[in-house]
Amino acid sequence: MKKAVILLSGGLDSATCLAIAKRDGFACYTMSFDYGQRNRAELNASRRLSEAAGAVRHIEFPLDLRMWGASALTDDAIAVPEECAHPGEVPVTYVPARNLVFLSLAAAFGEAMDCRDLFIGVNDVDFSNYPDCRAAFIDAFARAATLGTKAALNGETWTIHTPLQNLSKKEIIELGVSLGVDYSRTVSCYNADADGRACGVCASCRLRKEGFAAAAIPDPTRYR
Amino acid sequence: MKKAVILLSGGLDSATCLAIAKRDGFACYTMSFDYGQRNRAELNASRRLSEAAGAVRHIEFPLDLRMWGASALTDDAIAVPEECAHPGEVPVTYVPARNLVFLSLAAAFGEAMDCRDLFIGVNDVDFSNYPDCRAAFIDAFARAATLGTKAALNGETWTIHTPLQNLSKKEIIELGVSLGVDYSRTVSCYNADADGRACGVCASCRLRKEGFAAAAIPDPTRYR
Repeated sequence: MKKAVILLSGGLDSATCLAIAKRDGFACYTMSFDYGQRNRAELNASRRLSEAAGAVRHIEFPLDLRMWGASALTDDAIAVPEECAHPGEVPVTYVPARNLVFLSLAAAFGEAMDCRDLFIGVNDVDFSNYPDCRAAFIDAFARAATLGTKAALNGETWTIHTPLQNLSKKEIIELGVSLGVDYSRTVSCYNADADGRACGVCASCRLRKEGFAAAAIPDPTRYR
Repeated sequence: MKKAVILLSGGLDSATCLAIAKRDGFACYTMSFDYGQRNRAELNASRRLSEAAGAVRHIEFPLDLRMWGASALTDDAIAVPEECAHPGEVPVTYVPARNLVFLSLAAAFGEAMDCRDLFIGVNDVDFSNYPDCRAAFIDAFARAATLGTKAALNGETWTIHTPLQNLSKKEIIELGVSLGVDYSRTVSCYNADADGRACGVCASCRLRKEGFAAAAIPDPTRYR
Protein backbone atom coordinates (compact mmCIF):
# COMPACT_ATOMS: atom_id res chain seq x y z
CA MET A 1 0.00 0.00 0.00
CA LYS A 2 1.47 3.34 -1.01
CA LYS A 3 1.91 5.88 1.74
CA ALA A 4 1.10 9.59 1.63
CA VAL A 5 1.39 12.52 4.00
CA ILE A 6 -1.74 14.68 3.99
CA LEU A 7 -1.52 18.24 5.30
CA LEU A 8 -4.55 18.70 7.51
CA SER A 9 -5.57 22.16 8.70
CA GLY A 10 -8.90 21.03 10.08
CA GLY A 11 -10.73 23.05 7.45
CA LEU A 12 -13.11 22.03 4.72
CA ASP A 13 -10.51 21.77 1.94
CA SER A 14 -7.94 19.60 3.72
CA ALA A 15 -10.66 17.30 5.08
CA THR A 16 -11.77 16.73 1.48
CA CYS A 17 -8.16 16.14 0.46
CA LEU A 18 -7.80 13.43 3.08
CA ALA A 19 -10.96 11.71 1.82
CA ILE A 20 -9.54 11.77 -1.73
CA ALA A 21 -6.19 10.29 -0.63
CA LYS A 22 -8.08 7.53 1.15
CA ARG A 23 -10.29 6.91 -1.90
CA ASP A 24 -7.13 6.66 -4.01
CA GLY A 25 -5.83 3.85 -1.83
CA PHE A 26 -3.08 5.59 0.13
CA ALA A 27 -2.10 4.68 3.68
CA CYS A 28 -2.58 8.13 5.19
CA TYR A 29 -0.15 9.94 7.48
CA THR A 30 -1.75 13.20 8.55
CA MET A 31 0.09 16.29 9.69
CA SER A 32 -1.08 19.49 11.36
CA PHE A 33 0.89 22.46 12.58
CA ASP A 34 0.50 24.25 15.85
CA TYR A 35 1.99 27.47 14.52
CA GLY A 36 0.47 29.88 16.98
CA GLN A 37 -2.58 30.44 14.79
CA ARG A 38 -5.48 32.21 16.45
CA ASN A 39 -7.82 29.39 15.70
CA ARG A 40 -6.89 26.63 18.14
CA ALA A 41 -10.07 24.66 17.50
CA GLU A 42 -8.77 23.63 14.08
CA LEU A 43 -6.07 21.50 15.72
CA ASN A 44 -8.72 19.50 17.55
CA ALA A 45 -10.72 19.23 14.35
CA SER A 46 -7.65 17.84 12.54
CA ARG A 47 -7.12 15.19 15.17
CA ARG A 48 -10.74 14.08 15.01
CA LEU A 49 -10.79 14.07 11.19
CA SER A 50 -7.62 11.99 11.13
CA GLU A 51 -9.04 9.44 13.57
CA ALA A 52 -12.33 9.25 11.69
CA ALA A 53 -10.45 8.56 8.44
CA GLY A 54 -8.37 5.80 10.05
CA ALA A 55 -4.99 7.47 9.41
CA VAL A 56 -1.92 5.40 10.29
CA ARG A 57 -0.37 8.23 12.28
CA HIS A 58 -1.21 11.83 13.07
CA ILE A 59 1.48 14.39 13.82
CA GLU A 60 0.69 17.72 15.45
CA PHE A 61 3.89 19.64 14.88
CA PRO A 62 4.75 22.67 17.04
CA LEU A 63 6.08 25.53 14.93
CA ASP A 64 6.50 28.95 16.47
CA LEU A 65 5.75 31.22 13.54
CA ARG A 66 4.83 33.94 16.03
CA MET A 67 8.55 34.42 16.51
CA TRP A 68 8.45 36.78 13.54
CA GLY A 69 4.68 37.26 13.06
CA ALA A 70 3.88 39.47 10.06
CA SER A 71 0.45 37.92 9.45
CA ALA A 72 -3.01 38.47 10.92
CA LEU A 73 -2.98 34.78 11.86
CA THR A 74 0.27 34.88 13.82
CA ASP A 75 0.53 38.46 15.08
CA ASP A 76 -1.98 39.90 17.54
CA ALA A 77 -1.16 43.42 16.34
CA ILE A 78 -2.75 42.66 12.94
CA ALA A 79 -6.55 42.37 12.83
CA VAL A 80 -8.39 39.60 10.97
CA PRO A 81 -10.37 41.21 8.14
CA GLU A 82 -14.05 40.65 7.45
CA GLU A 83 -13.63 41.38 3.76
CA CYS A 84 -11.75 39.38 1.14
CA ALA A 85 -8.65 41.06 -0.24
CA HIS A 86 -8.99 43.12 -3.39
CA PRO A 87 -7.89 41.53 -6.68
CA GLY A 88 -4.11 41.51 -6.97
CA GLU A 89 -3.65 42.16 -3.25
CA VAL A 90 -2.13 39.60 -0.89
CA PRO A 91 -4.48 39.19 2.11
CA VAL A 92 -3.13 40.13 5.58
CA THR A 93 -3.91 36.54 6.53
CA TYR A 94 -1.03 35.44 4.30
CA VAL A 95 1.62 33.82 6.56
CA PRO A 96 5.15 34.29 5.15
CA ALA A 97 6.20 31.19 3.18
CA ARG A 98 3.70 29.07 5.08
CA ASN A 99 3.07 26.40 2.46
CA LEU A 100 6.79 26.22 1.67
CA VAL A 101 7.45 25.51 5.36
CA PHE A 102 4.51 23.11 5.75
CA LEU A 103 5.39 21.12 2.62
CA SER A 104 9.06 20.95 3.63
CA LEU A 105 8.19 19.50 7.01
CA ALA A 106 5.71 17.12 5.39
CA ALA A 107 8.52 15.95 3.09
CA ALA A 108 10.81 15.45 6.10
CA PHE A 109 8.16 13.43 7.96
CA GLY A 110 7.31 11.59 4.74
CA GLU A 111 10.93 10.72 3.99
CA ALA A 112 11.31 9.30 7.50
CA MET A 113 8.15 7.23 6.88
CA ASP A 114 9.49 6.10 3.51
CA CYS A 115 6.86 7.82 1.40
CA ARG A 116 7.10 10.02 -1.71
CA ASP A 117 3.56 11.40 -1.97
CA LEU A 118 2.10 14.48 -0.32
CA PHE A 119 -1.44 15.86 -0.48
CA ILE A 120 -2.24 19.53 0.04
CA GLY A 121 -5.62 21.20 -0.38
CA VAL A 122 -4.45 24.32 -2.18
CA ASN A 123 -6.90 25.97 -4.47
CA ASP A 124 -6.49 28.52 -7.20
CA VAL A 125 -10.10 29.56 -7.49
CA ASP A 126 -11.10 31.16 -4.21
CA PHE A 127 -7.73 32.39 -2.90
CA SER A 128 -5.76 33.21 -6.01
CA ASN A 129 -3.82 35.94 -4.21
CA TYR A 130 -1.91 33.57 -1.97
CA PRO A 131 1.32 33.05 -3.92
CA ASP A 132 1.96 29.71 -2.22
CA CYS A 133 -1.29 28.15 -3.45
CA ARG A 134 -0.51 28.33 -7.15
CA ALA A 135 0.38 25.40 -9.39
CA ALA A 136 3.70 26.94 -10.45
CA PHE A 137 4.86 26.99 -6.83
CA ILE A 138 3.71 23.43 -6.19
CA ASP A 139 5.62 22.19 -9.25
CA ALA A 140 8.76 24.05 -8.14
CA PHE A 141 8.42 22.59 -4.66
CA ALA A 142 8.10 19.02 -5.99
CA ARG A 143 11.36 19.51 -7.83
CA ALA A 144 13.12 20.94 -4.76
CA ALA A 145 11.89 18.02 -2.62
CA THR A 146 13.02 15.51 -5.22
CA LEU A 147 16.50 17.04 -5.40
CA GLY A 148 16.82 17.72 -1.66
CA THR A 149 16.09 14.22 -0.32
CA LYS A 150 17.36 10.69 -0.87
CA ALA A 151 14.85 10.40 -3.70
CA ALA A 152 17.39 12.23 -5.88
CA LEU A 153 19.95 9.48 -5.38
CA ASN A 154 17.47 6.64 -5.99
CA GLY A 155 15.98 8.00 -9.20
CA GLU A 156 12.65 8.60 -7.43
CA THR A 157 10.48 11.70 -7.49
CA TRP A 158 8.11 13.36 -5.05
CA THR A 159 4.52 13.82 -6.18
CA ILE A 160 2.57 16.69 -4.66
CA HIS A 161 -1.11 15.95 -5.11
CA THR A 162 -3.36 19.02 -5.29
CA PRO A 163 -6.73 17.49 -6.14
CA LEU A 164 -8.64 20.68 -5.30
CA GLN A 165 -6.48 23.03 -7.39
CA ASN A 166 -9.11 23.93 -9.94
CA LEU A 167 -12.34 23.22 -8.08
CA SER A 168 -14.76 25.86 -6.81
CA LYS A 169 -15.89 25.69 -3.19
CA LYS A 170 -19.19 24.32 -4.48
CA GLU A 171 -17.43 21.50 -6.34
CA ILE A 172 -15.17 20.70 -3.37
CA ILE A 173 -18.20 20.37 -1.10
CA GLU A 174 -20.07 18.18 -3.62
CA LEU A 175 -17.04 15.91 -3.98
CA GLY A 176 -16.50 15.69 -0.21
CA VAL A 177 -20.15 14.87 0.47
CA SER A 178 -19.99 12.11 -2.15
CA LEU A 179 -16.97 10.70 -0.27
CA GLY A 180 -18.72 10.86 3.10
CA VAL A 181 -16.85 13.80 4.61
CA ASP A 182 -18.61 15.06 7.73
CA TYR A 183 -18.16 18.79 7.33
CA SER A 184 -19.62 19.48 10.76
CA ARG A 185 -16.25 18.27 12.07
CA THR A 186 -14.30 20.86 10.09
CA VAL A 187 -13.42 24.39 11.18
CA SER A 188 -12.80 27.12 8.61
CA CYS A 189 -13.46 30.27 10.65
CA TYR A 190 -10.52 32.57 11.44
CA ASN A 191 -12.23 33.48 14.72
CA ALA A 192 -13.68 30.14 15.81
CA ASP A 193 -14.26 29.79 19.55
CA ALA A 194 -12.57 27.12 21.67
CA ASP A 195 -15.34 24.69 20.79
CA GLY A 196 -14.88 25.27 17.04
CA ARG A 197 -18.04 27.36 16.52
CA ALA A 198 -17.75 29.84 13.67
CA CYS A 199 -18.29 33.60 13.62
CA GLY A 200 -20.11 33.53 10.29
CA VAL A 201 -18.74 36.88 9.14
CA CYS A 202 -14.97 36.55 8.45
CA ALA A 203 -13.72 36.11 4.88
CA SER A 204 -13.26 32.39 5.39
CA CYS A 205 -16.78 31.90 6.80
CA ARG A 206 -18.27 33.83 3.89
CA LEU A 207 -16.57 31.71 1.24
CA ARG A 208 -17.65 28.56 3.01
CA LYS A 209 -21.25 29.70 3.38
CA GLU A 210 -21.43 30.63 -0.29
CA GLY A 211 -20.08 27.19 -1.20
CA PHE A 212 -22.82 25.32 0.65
CA ALA A 213 -25.44 27.65 -0.78
CA ALA A 214 -24.13 27.15 -4.33
CA ALA A 215 -24.07 23.36 -3.87
CA ALA A 216 -27.62 23.51 -2.44
CA ILE A 217 -26.40 21.40 0.49
CA PRO A 218 -27.54 22.33 4.01
CA ASP A 219 -24.65 24.09 5.80
CA PRO A 220 -23.63 21.86 8.76
CA THR A 221 -21.31 24.53 10.19
CA ARG A 222 -21.84 25.17 13.88
CA TYR A 223 -22.25 28.93 14.26
CA ARG A 224 -22.15 30.59 17.64
CA MET B 1 21.77 48.14 3.38
CA LYS B 2 20.60 44.82 1.96
CA LYS B 3 19.46 42.23 4.46
CA ALA B 4 20.29 38.54 4.48
CA VAL B 5 19.38 35.56 6.64
CA ILE B 6 22.42 33.40 7.42
CA LEU B 7 21.88 29.81 8.55
CA LEU B 8 24.22 29.29 11.46
CA SER B 9 24.90 25.82 12.82
CA GLY B 10 27.75 26.92 15.04
CA GLY B 11 30.22 24.92 12.97
CA LEU B 12 33.22 26.00 10.95
CA ASP B 13 31.44 26.31 7.60
CA SER B 14 28.50 28.46 8.68
CA ALA B 15 30.76 30.73 10.75
CA THR B 16 32.76 31.36 7.58
CA CYS B 17 29.55 31.98 5.66
CA LEU B 18 28.50 34.65 8.15
CA ALA B 19 31.87 36.39 7.79
CA ILE B 20 31.44 36.39 3.99
CA ALA B 21 27.92 37.85 4.21
CA LYS B 22 29.27 40.58 6.47
CA ARG B 23 32.19 41.26 4.11
CA ASP B 24 29.70 41.54 1.26
CA GLY B 25 27.86 44.31 3.08
CA PHE B 26 24.69 42.55 4.21
CA ALA B 27 22.83 43.40 7.39
CA CYS B 28 22.91 39.92 8.92
CA TYR B 29 19.96 38.08 10.46
CA THR B 30 21.23 34.78 11.84
CA MET B 31 19.17 31.67 12.40
CA SER B 32 19.87 28.45 14.25
CA PHE B 33 17.66 25.46 14.86
CA ASP B 34 17.18 23.61 18.08
CA TYR B 35 16.10 20.42 16.35
CA GLY B 36 16.92 17.94 19.08
CA GLN B 37 20.45 17.42 17.76
CA ARG B 38 22.83 15.61 20.09
CA ASN B 39 25.27 18.45 20.01
CA ARG B 40 23.72 21.17 22.17
CA ALA B 41 26.94 23.15 22.44
CA GLU B 42 26.59 24.22 18.82
CA LEU B 43 23.54 26.33 19.74
CA ASN B 44 25.62 28.31 22.23
CA ALA B 45 28.38 28.63 19.67
CA SER B 46 25.89 30.04 17.15
CA ARG B 47 24.67 32.64 19.60
CA ARG B 48 28.21 33.76 20.41
CA LEU B 49 29.26 33.84 16.76
CA SER B 50 26.21 35.93 15.88
CA GLU B 51 26.93 38.43 18.66
CA ALA B 52 30.60 38.64 17.72
CA ALA B 53 29.65 39.40 14.11
CA GLY B 54 27.20 42.13 15.15
CA ALA B 55 24.13 40.49 13.62
CA VAL B 56 20.92 42.54 13.71
CA ARG B 57 18.90 39.67 15.17
CA HIS B 58 19.53 36.05 16.08
CA ILE B 59 16.74 33.49 16.05
CA GLU B 60 17.08 30.12 17.76
CA PHE B 61 14.15 28.24 16.34
CA PRO B 62 12.76 25.17 18.13
CA LEU B 63 12.03 22.35 15.70
CA ASP B 64 11.23 18.91 17.00
CA LEU B 65 12.73 16.68 14.32
CA ARG B 66 12.98 13.91 16.93
CA MET B 67 9.26 13.44 16.41
CA TRP B 68 10.13 11.13 13.50
CA GLY B 69 13.89 10.66 14.02
CA ALA B 70 15.45 8.49 11.28
CA SER B 71 18.94 10.05 11.64
CA ALA B 72 21.89 9.46 13.96
CA LEU B 73 21.60 13.13 14.92
CA THR B 74 17.95 13.01 15.98
CA ASP B 75 17.37 9.39 17.04
CA ASP B 76 19.16 7.89 20.04
CA ALA B 77 18.69 4.41 18.60
CA ILE B 78 21.10 5.23 15.74
CA ALA B 79 24.81 5.51 16.65
CA VAL B 80 27.07 8.31 15.38
CA PRO B 81 29.72 6.75 13.13
CA GLU B 82 33.45 7.32 13.43
CA GLU B 83 34.03 6.66 9.73
CA CYS B 84 32.88 8.70 6.75
CA ALA B 85 30.23 7.07 4.60
CA HIS B 86 31.39 5.06 1.60
CA PRO B 87 31.19 6.70 -1.82
CA GLY B 88 27.63 6.75 -3.10
CA GLU B 89 26.21 6.05 0.36
CA VAL B 90 24.12 8.58 2.30
CA PRO B 91 25.59 8.92 5.83
CA VAL B 92 23.39 7.90 8.80
CA THR B 93 23.89 11.48 10.00
CA TYR B 94 21.67 12.64 7.12
CA VAL B 95 18.54 14.22 8.64
CA PRO B 96 15.52 13.80 6.33
CA ALA B 97 15.01 16.92 4.22
CA ARG B 98 16.93 19.01 6.75
CA ASN B 99 18.20 21.72 4.44
CA LEU B 100 14.82 21.92 2.71
CA VAL B 101 13.23 22.57 6.10
CA PHE B 102 15.95 24.95 7.30
CA LEU B 103 15.92 27.00 4.09
CA SER B 104 12.12 27.16 4.11
CA LEU B 105 12.05 28.54 7.62
CA ALA B 106 14.87 30.95 6.75
CA ALA B 107 12.76 32.15 3.81
CA ALA B 108 9.76 32.62 6.13
CA PHE B 109 11.84 34.59 8.65
CA GLY B 110 13.48 36.49 5.81
CA GLU B 111 10.18 37.37 4.17
CA ALA B 112 8.88 38.73 7.48
CA MET B 113 12.10 40.82 7.75
CA ASP B 114 11.67 42.01 4.16
CA CYS B 115 14.78 40.32 2.79
CA ARG B 116 15.36 38.19 -0.31
CA ASP B 117 18.85 36.80 0.32
CA LEU B 118 19.85 33.68 2.23
CA PHE B 119 23.30 32.30 2.99
CA ILE B 120 23.93 28.62 3.64
CA GLY B 121 27.31 26.94 4.07
CA VAL B 122 26.66 23.87 1.97
CA ASN B 123 29.63 22.26 0.38
CA ASP B 124 29.94 19.75 -2.42
CA VAL B 125 33.50 18.72 -1.77
CA ASP B 126 33.62 17.06 1.62
CA PHE B 127 30.06 15.80 1.98
CA SER B 128 28.98 15.04 -1.54
CA ASN B 129 26.63 12.29 -0.36
CA TYR B 130 24.19 14.62 1.35
CA PRO B 131 21.58 15.17 -1.38
CA ASP B 132 20.52 18.49 0.14
CA CYS B 133 23.98 20.07 -0.17
CA ARG B 134 24.19 19.98 -3.94
CA ALA B 135 23.90 22.94 -6.27
CA ALA B 136 20.98 21.43 -8.20
CA PHE B 137 18.92 21.32 -5.01
CA ILE B 138 19.85 24.87 -4.02
CA ASP B 139 18.80 26.15 -7.46
CA ALA B 140 15.49 24.29 -7.24
CA PHE B 141 14.90 25.68 -3.77
CA ALA B 142 15.54 29.27 -4.89
CA ARG B 143 12.88 28.83 -7.54
CA ALA B 144 10.38 27.34 -5.06
CA ALA B 145 11.01 30.22 -2.62
CA THR B 146 10.58 32.77 -5.38
CA LEU B 147 7.28 31.26 -6.49
CA GLY B 148 6.00 30.51 -2.98
CA THR B 149 6.34 33.97 -1.42
CA LYS B 150 5.24 37.52 -2.22
CA ALA B 151 8.40 37.86 -4.31
CA ALA B 152 6.52 36.07 -7.10
CA LEU B 153 3.92 38.83 -7.24
CA ASN B 154 6.46 41.66 -7.11
CA GLY B 155 8.74 40.37 -9.84
CA GLU B 156 11.51 39.73 -7.29
CA THR B 157 13.61 36.62 -6.83
CA TRP B 158 15.27 34.91 -3.89
CA THR B 159 19.04 34.46 -4.04
CA ILE B 160 20.53 31.56 -2.11
CA HIS B 161 24.21 32.29 -1.56
CA THR B 162 26.43 29.23 -1.22
CA PRO B 163 29.90 30.77 -1.11
CA LEU B 164 31.53 27.55 0.13
CA GLN B 165 29.99 25.27 -2.50
CA ASN B 166 33.20 24.40 -4.29
CA LEU B 167 35.83 25.04 -1.62
CA SER B 168 37.82 22.38 0.16
CA LYS B 169 37.95 22.47 3.97
CA LYS B 170 41.49 23.86 3.62
CA GLU B 171 40.27 26.72 1.40
CA ILE B 172 37.32 27.47 3.70
CA ILE B 173 39.65 27.75 6.69
CA GLU B 174 42.11 29.96 4.79
CA LEU B 175 39.26 32.25 3.69
CA GLY B 176 37.77 32.40 7.19
CA VAL B 177 41.10 33.19 8.82
CA SER B 178 41.64 36.02 6.29
CA LEU B 179 38.22 37.40 7.35
CA GLY B 180 39.04 37.17 11.05
CA VAL B 181 36.82 34.22 11.99
CA ASP B 182 37.73 32.90 15.43
CA TYR B 183 37.40 29.16 14.85
CA SER B 184 37.92 28.40 18.53
CA ARG B 185 34.31 29.61 18.93
CA THR B 186 32.96 27.05 16.46
CA VAL B 187 31.83 23.52 17.21
CA SER B 188 31.91 20.83 14.51
CA CYS B 189 32.02 17.64 16.59
CA TYR B 190 29.00 15.32 16.52
CA ASN B 191 29.78 14.36 20.12
CA ALA B 192 30.88 17.69 21.63
CA ASP B 193 30.46 17.95 25.39
CA ALA B 194 28.28 20.58 27.06
CA ASP B 195 31.18 23.02 26.98
CA GLY B 196 31.73 22.53 23.24
CA ARG B 197 34.91 20.45 23.51
CA ALA B 198 35.37 18.01 20.64
CA CYS B 199 35.90 14.24 20.67
CA GLY B 200 38.53 14.37 17.93
CA VAL B 201 37.52 11.05 16.41
CA CYS B 202 34.07 11.40 14.78
CA ALA B 203 33.79 11.89 11.00
CA SER B 204 33.19 15.63 11.45
CA CYS B 205 36.24 16.07 13.73
CA ARG B 206 38.44 14.20 11.29
CA LEU B 207 37.47 16.37 8.31
CA ARG B 208 38.05 19.48 10.36
CA LYS B 209 41.44 18.32 11.64
CA GLU B 210 42.55 17.45 8.12
CA GLY B 211 41.47 20.93 6.97
CA PHE B 212 43.65 22.74 9.49
CA ALA B 213 46.55 20.42 8.74
CA ALA B 214 46.23 20.99 4.98
CA ALA B 215 46.05 24.77 5.50
CA ALA B 216 49.08 24.59 7.78
CA ILE B 217 47.14 26.63 10.34
CA PRO B 218 47.32 25.65 14.02
CA ASP B 219 44.06 23.88 14.95
CA PRO B 220 42.31 26.05 17.59
CA THR B 221 39.71 23.36 18.30
CA ARG B 222 39.25 22.66 22.00
CA TYR B 223 39.53 18.90 22.40
CA ARG B 224 38.57 17.17 25.60
